[in-house]
Amino acid sequence: MPILKDSLRSLGRSWTNLTESLLGGLLGKTDIDLANGDEELLRRQLKKWLDARGGEVSARNHAMQIGSLYRNLSTAGRKRFLTMLAREFGIDRAALSWHCQAYLAPDADHAAVEQQLRDLLVPPRLKLLRQFNTLPDGIKFLVDLRRDLIAFSREDPELRAFDGEIRHLLATWFDVGMLHMHQIDWQSPAAVLEKLVEYEAVHEIHSWQDLRHRLHLDRRCYAFFHPNMPGEPLIFVEVALTNGIADSIQTLLDESTPDVPPEKADTAIFYSISNAQQGLKGISFGNFLIKRVVDTLRAELPNIRTFATLSPIPGFARWLDGLNDEKMAEYLGEEKMNRLAALCAALEVKGGLRSLLQRPGWHRDRQITDVLRPLIEHLLYHYFHTFREDGQPIDPVERFHLGNGARIERVNWLGDISDKGLAQSCGFMVNYLYPIRDIEKNHELYATKRKIVVSSAVKALGK
Amino acid sequence: MPILKDSLRSLGRSWTNLTESLLGGLLGKTDIDLANGDEELLRRQLKKWLDARGGEVSARNHAMQIGSLYRNLSTAGRKRFLTMLAREFGIDRAALSWHCQAYLAPDADHAAVEQQLRDLLVPPRLKLLRQFNTLPDGIKFLVDLRRDLIAFSREDPELRAFDGEIRHLLATWFDVGMLHMHQIDWQSPAAVLEKLVEYEAVHEIHSWQDLRHRLHLDRRCYAFFHPNMPGEPLIFVEVALTNGIADSIQTLLDESTPDVPPEKADTAIFYSISNAQQGLKGISFGNFLIKRVVDTLRAELPNIRTFATLSPIPGFARWLDGLNDEKMAEYLGEEKMNRLAALCAALEVKGGLRSLLQRPGWHRDRQITDVLRPLIEHLLYHYFHTFREDGQPIDPVERFHLGNGARIERVNWLGDISDKGLAQSCGFMVNYLYPIRDIEKNHELYATKRKIVVSSAVKALGK
Amino acid sequence: MPILKDSLRSLGRSWTNLTESLLGGLLGKTDIDLANGDEELLRRQLKKWLDARGGEVSARNHAMQIGSLYRNLSTAGRKRFLTMLAREFGIDRAALSWHCQAYLAPDADHAAVEQQLRDLLVPPRLKLLRQFNTLPDGIKFLVDLRRDLIAFSREDPELRAFDGEIRHLLATWFDVGMLHMHQIDWQSPAAVLEKLVEYEAVHEIHSWQDLRHRLHLDRRCYAFFHPNMPGEPLIFVEVALTNGIADSIQTLLDESTPDVPPEKADTAIFYSISNAQQGLKGISFGNFLIKRVVDTLRAELPNIRTFATLSPIPGFARWLDGLNDEKMAEYLGEEKMNRLAALCAALEVKGGLRSLLQRPGWHRDRQITDVLRPLIEHLLYHYFHTFREDGQPIDPVERFHLGNGARIERVNWLGDISDKGLAQSCGFMVNYLYPIRDIEKNHELYATKRKIVVSSAVKALGK
Amino acid sequence: MPILKDSLRSLGRSWTNLTESLLGGLLGKTDIDLANGDEELLRRQLKKWLDARGGEVSARNHAMQIGSLYRNLSTAGRKRFLTMLAREFGIDRAALSWHCQAYLAPDADHAAVEQQLRDLLVPPRLKLLRQFNTLPDGIKFLVDLRRDLIAFSREDPELRAFDGEIRHLLATWFDVGMLHMHQIDWQSPAAVLEKLVEYEAVHEIHSWQDLRHRLHLDRRCYAFFHPNMPGEPLIFVEVALTNGIADSIQTLLDESTPDVPPEKADTAIFYSISNAQQGLKGISFGNFLIKRVVDTLRAELPNIRTFATLSPIPGFARWLDGLNDEKMAEYLGEEKMNRLAALCAALEVKGGLRSLLQRPGWHRDRQITDVLRPLIEHLLYHYFHTFREDGQPIDPVERFHLGNGARIERVNWLGDISDKGLAQSCGFMVNYLYPIRDIEKNHELYATKRKIVVSSAVKALGK
Repeated sequence: MPILKDSLRSLGRSWTNLTESLLGGLLGKTDIDLANGDEELLRRQLKKWLDARGGEVSARNHAMQIGSLYRNLSTAGRKRFLTMLAREFGIDRAALSWHCQAYLAPDADHAAVEQQLRDLLVPPRLKLLRQFNTLPDGIKFLVDLRRDLIAFSREDPELRAFDGEIRHLLATWFDVGMLHMHQIDWQSPAAVLEKLVEYEAVHEIHSWQDLRHRLHLDRRCYAFFHPNMPGEPLIFVEVALTNGIADSIQTLLDESTPDVPPEKADTAIFYSISNAQQGLKGISFGNFLIKRVVDTLRAELPNIRTFATLSPIPGFARWLDGLNDEKMAEYLGEEKMNRLAALCAALEVKGGLRSLLQRPGWHRDRQITDVLRPLIEHLLYHYFHTFREDGQPIDPVERFHLGNGARIERVNWLGDISDKGLAQSCGFMVNYLYPIRDIEKNHELYATKRKIVVSSAVKALGK
Repeated sequence: MPILKDSLRSLGRSWTNLTESLLGGLLGKTDIDLANGDEELLRRQLKKWLDARGGEVSARNHAMQIGSLYRNLSTAGRKRFLTMLAREFGIDRAALSWHCQAYLAPDADHAAVEQQLRDLLVPPRLKLLRQFNTLPDGIKFLVDLRRDLIAFSREDPELRAFDGEIRHLLATWFDVGMLHMHQIDWQSPAAVLEKLVEYEAVHEIHSWQDLRHRLHLDRRCYAFFHPNMPGEPLIFVEVALTNGIADSIQTLLDESTPDVPPEKADTAIFYSISNAQQGLKGISFGNFLIKRVVDTLRAELPNIRTFATLSPIPGFARWLDGLNDEKMAEYLGEEKMNRLAALCAALEVKGGLRSLLQRPGWHRDRQITDVLRPLIEHLLYHYFHTFREDGQPIDPVERFHLGNGARIERVNWLGDISDKGLAQSCGFMVNYLYPIRDIEKNHELYATKRKIVVSSAVKALGK
Repeated sequence: MPILKDSLRSLGRSWTNLTESLLGGLLGKTDIDLANGDEELLRRQLKKWLDARGGEVSARNHAMQIGSLYRNLSTAGRKRFLTMLAREFGIDRAALSWHCQAYLAPDADHAAVEQQLRDLLVPPRLKLLRQFNTLPDGIKFLVDLRRDLIAFSREDPELRAFDGEIRHLLATWFDVGMLHMHQIDWQSPAAVLEKLVEYEAVHEIHSWQDLRHRLHLDRRCYAFFHPNMPGEPLIFVEVALTNGIADSIQTLLDESTPDVPPEKADTAIFYSISNAQQGLKGISFGNFLIKRVVDTLRAELPNIRTFATLSPIPGFARWLDGLNDEKMAEYLGEEKMNRLAALCAALEVKGGLRSLLQRPGWHRDRQITDVLRPLIEHLLYHYFHTFREDGQPIDPVERFHLGNGARIERVNWLGDISDKGLAQSCGFMVNYLYPIRDIEKNHELYATKRKIVVSSAVKALGK
Repeated sequence: MPILKDSLRSLGRSWTNLTESLLGGLLGKTDIDLANGDEELLRRQLKKWLDARGGEVSARNHAMQIGSLYRNLSTAGRKRFLTMLAREFGIDRAALSWHCQAYLAPDADHAAVEQQLRDLLVPPRLKLLRQFNTLPDGIKFLVDLRRDLIAFSREDPELRAFDGEIRHLLATWFDVGMLHMHQIDWQSPAAVLEKLVEYEAVHEIHSWQDLRHRLHLDRRCYAFFHPNMPGEPLIFVEVALTNGIADSIQTLLDESTPDVPPEKADTAIFYSISNAQQGLKGISFGNFLIKRVVDTLRAELPNIRTFATLSPIPGFARWLDGLNDEKMAEYLGEEKMNRLAALCAALEVKGGLRSLLQRPGWHRDRQITDVLRPLIEHLLYHYFHTFREDGQPIDPVERFHLGNGARIERVNWLGDISDKGLAQSCGFMVNYLYPIRDIEKNHELYATKRKIVVSSAVKALGK
């Protein structure tokens, strides 16, 4: 937030008896702790502002001061500030109770009370934060403030209601109707590209060279942007144009793999989707982004008929670790258990499947992989059909894509043999397929009946 | 809303037993009345959609269908449709009452009930309309729908609560932080310029020639636009760069008046400000637009030191008409009343001031104007200090500019001698001055104490 | 050319003994005649500048002075100035002769002399004018200067060689590789649109309403622009999207004719092509513009398969007037002559065909048109095959389109019944067809063998 | 040059008896040598095209074929091709001689012959190459072809005349009036930034981190672009905003040096200027770029009053090496020579100044530097006043800046202590100052009188 010191200095006059450290904070001194009376002073100042019937311009000035101060607070100071807002500037529960009673009165003017209830349900802290959206960089400020709040609320559940309110506010501002999708390529500003490198969450970008390859001829990258946060991608997806559905992330990312001319490709593989703003956690853009990209690619490259992902199975290894022996025996059946036991005996391994998967280099040992593959594929089938309390699958990636109307198309043995891939997903990757004609139907089946739609090949793994 | 018929035809299948006329409406037949069972069918369909747990894409499709249908309804059909939404798709008051009771229970989980209250206070009709913001042209659709609703609610107060909800929704979407200000000039698209001609509300634009003059060297025009309504100005202001504060709108608009080179001008005169979207009534942008224009001009032309308006006094003549004789005598005092009586006698006019102002060409008759000018200026002073119940002045233009921090600087006798100017404002125009340093202070004085800030010259008129 | 007076005043110092009127001209006084010694002073100043070894910046300053002065000259002054340049600042013929002799010497260093010849062939007046291309608006200045020169050289053939040099210079700068084609539509700046209205040469635009219709849904307008003359169209073409080849300009321009949805149209009709800069006369863009538009429309609307014009026959009526009786009899043959004679007798008309075409309203009289149509169509066939000395057809529109590779596809009886159409073309219009596959072949046939390519229907008219 | 194979295949038909390898070249096979009859076939084809009266479109197609073929030639093939053009497609000297005689005839039509001479002086090879400017990427193609030609003409002087013609053609196309200056910063496309890294010729860019620093807050980078070569910088200059004139390139490039806020800086230091296109050698943009940057910075940051360079002295060390002992003694005088001798004796160094400068780390040894500094500064003064045959200084950087109107302001001892700086410039750097008011005067003094303008401080070094 570019703030002129002179303007701040004059604004500072609206504070009563400003302490030295707070004035410092307003003027650019950093690491203010909000200790020693600063907190009390700030509290009084916030109350004064909220009570005032001042106009839009003073509201804007106050927001600018708070923003400037907040940026200069230490971690402890920020936590103090947010906790104060959470505890002391929430909903006026006495007033709300009073209006609830008024609503229940026999002669209540329902329409009027409803409007009053609506107003009361917007707590003062939110009124304060709302003023940021007219400031340059004000929306980015709030997104970053929420990133702090999320971190603090892990330790302090009292902050969660406050977080929920900000999430709701941001969800309104970041409504998908307001977002613009842009392609990111080698013509994009370096300032945007370095954010890609920073935020890529699925398969790390190692160098500008690696990045360049991901933006090359047969690659696409698309991101959502908000008009008031130019140059800041919210979420981005990386796509490879291929012939046939890709089965290995290592092959896909290998810079020496020859390019497919885009107009000859028949498949688009979504191989990475990353959120770029921690402060927008819980606000969902991914499904819209995928759909918009599918529409864009279909219009641009009509030869592309197949849209699928190449996705990790982030919870699989953990689930496998937690599986007790009875359950595993039940899933695998006698014959498969015997084969596993024979292999363990032959290799003098104790501890069964889990120990085998600990052996360095197991995935390069044909003796092991020949036996393990059908077993783990079978278990993977069951993993995909394991549910949380709310009836949704436990795998977050599966939840996301099924919720968008995709189906589980294929599992790829040794599709990711990086350390992370072996540790998380036992080396598996999965293709979720987005079948143009059935997306909506699949989505409804999942949304209403929690139906796990799978291809016949995947269904066969369960037998 | 550009909708492909094929896609609509397939969507039509989601309706049960679609009547012929409704299908016609979906496919482009116009002037559907929603009679003969159509209304009942639509009601059932809306309920079905609201109950469904369908995803974002079906929501979007439903919105598209409703939008397409609505565009093809006759006036009667639209009124039926909006009335149905207002009466049958409002807040679930039973549920709301139940939750109010829950909130009052001794062991209530307040945070949880607050969230439920918040949800209940968003009525189904609003959930339906919210889905429009992801459609291309969807926001413009809602703005136009509200224009219809405002018209209908004049006759039917039941629609007003509904209107309030849409206004609130639009106020969120049209938050000033989301708007872009653009200068409009002769390089602007013809499609935008013709809207200027259409929407200019204060001083009609007579021809492209007249328009061109208003966008000329020493003129500026600025408008707010919303990113999702490109090419649709929301509000625009016309500015003349002058030397000294202009005192006559006829001189200002005269194409033969020589241009002032912008870098030589010392004053910016805001001589017309017009809202371009009836459906955004009650959502205020004017104050922000004026402030943004002031900032822009100050940065571009540092020699401009004075920012003022040349404004009509739209309620003055009506107020004068309604003034009873005692009140007028009290305002004017004996001496002025005598002078008026003498003039009336000399001209053999009965009926006093009001009759004099009816005489054709009175404003060109020195005998009359010499006497009338000080009288009417005195009355004008009192008009500016006449208040509504809420303590604000009765003149809407005065309310607007004082509320923005301006002061009443000067009244201009015969500043507007058009028929409209004579009839509405007795030929007066007023300059409101925006004093850069005092805007904020004036605004606070007005907002908190309803202080009418006037220049010493205007103050003298009251004596 | 925005020139600061202060800078000019200081530049003025580089002149020796500046007369009052020339100084006035430099400072903005208009209508300078270059009389009374001014011409002599200017001559000396130009020579001084040309001799100087000054750098690019002084060259630029001198160009700016000349430009400013020229703009302020009266017509007489401009003619004096251009005539001086033409007579006194041309090629140094003595030096050129000397170098020609040097080239013929037995031991000549040919490469070196060639370079010297090249330099000598660029006369001083051209070196002067070349400096304009670095000035803002400098290129537009030269284009307008040439417009003056063309007008003067009609009366004064001495100016023609000079004109040829400037044309050559402009042809380099306006090389088609440097031009950008833009679509012009209702989103284009009003400043560009008003130029369309001004420059349309074929079918006058009557109002903004008419213009709007020509830029509507099923209409297209494309223009070439030069990067250094932004907002100044060089040439533009108007296109109608139709079903089948249009046969009447009145129908095409009628605003009440229903629109054809562009994606349903199968034909693009080029119905007007106009040069917008008189100063670029003789520099050809039209053929490139048509080809670029064809490529653009094919890419955007693949359903459009037919590209044709609806063109006037501007020289036909004049040719017919000049045809002597023997020639007409020879063209028409005995039978047709008899039919014509019978009609004249029946109507008691003397003077034959020409008199009939003078009768007001003849084109609405079936008795006449039934007889005349086959006769005139037959004559039109012969008109199309009448040649100039250089072997090209006498009709300029025919020359243009055949030279581009089109063929004569169809003649349209009563295709233009405006006064101008009846007077110029006997009410005929012609469709030239651009057959995608044969354009190049047709063009070569015409360029190398002057072959007039016609459709079989047009060939039949000749029988 | 993106060429569709199908189109080329059909174009191939215009060739007679295409050999297999040439067809291969047209279709994308690389490393064609033009051996074995290919050259002869190409020669015949070029002649056929030049003789044809074909239209613009075929010309364009032929250019496309040649372009495609050329790209696929090996180095040997390219040399054969260019040599053929140089030897066989030059000026028709017989015809030129004939016309020279015609010009000398007593009754010659001078104007007509001049036009014919002009035409003859454009050789066929140039007509061929001119056609490239309508192709996409055609201008970049010619620039790269000239890069090859420059390399070949080092070994083969026959190619030089041809190179001169292309340079002249490119100089017309790259006229400074056609170029656009753009700022390059961290918002620029990565595709442009990587070219900066590649082309920086003065102070190598070591990493994206280094690049980022050079585009930072207190740094500017500007480049010229041609509208037909988007994304290809032609020349760029790097500027540092500082307080006072910088005296050390190491300090300037050090990323840990704190930024100067641009609005507080009083000086702009041009510390690197690099040509990015070898094929534009000999076409000068640098002076225009510097002047345009000065204008831009003055408008944007009025507090910047001083514009200077921090430049190497690339020929100084070589000149010193070539200086014979008598000359050096003459320059330095007895006293300085004695001091040098004393130092050499003390350090037991033989070989005088040159040997001292060979000692590793000499520049960190106060004993040496204290003695050497005044000596070398004195010699540097004489170096700056050493001239070529044409009367210009031998130092290329000095020639460039003095030619632009700068003056030699200051020499900076140990201003560049990199290996390259010590080896080339004995560790010196020089500031050339661009004095806003005197640039034009200095330039004229240099252009007309070869005056070396120096500051009084530099003048003092010569004493």
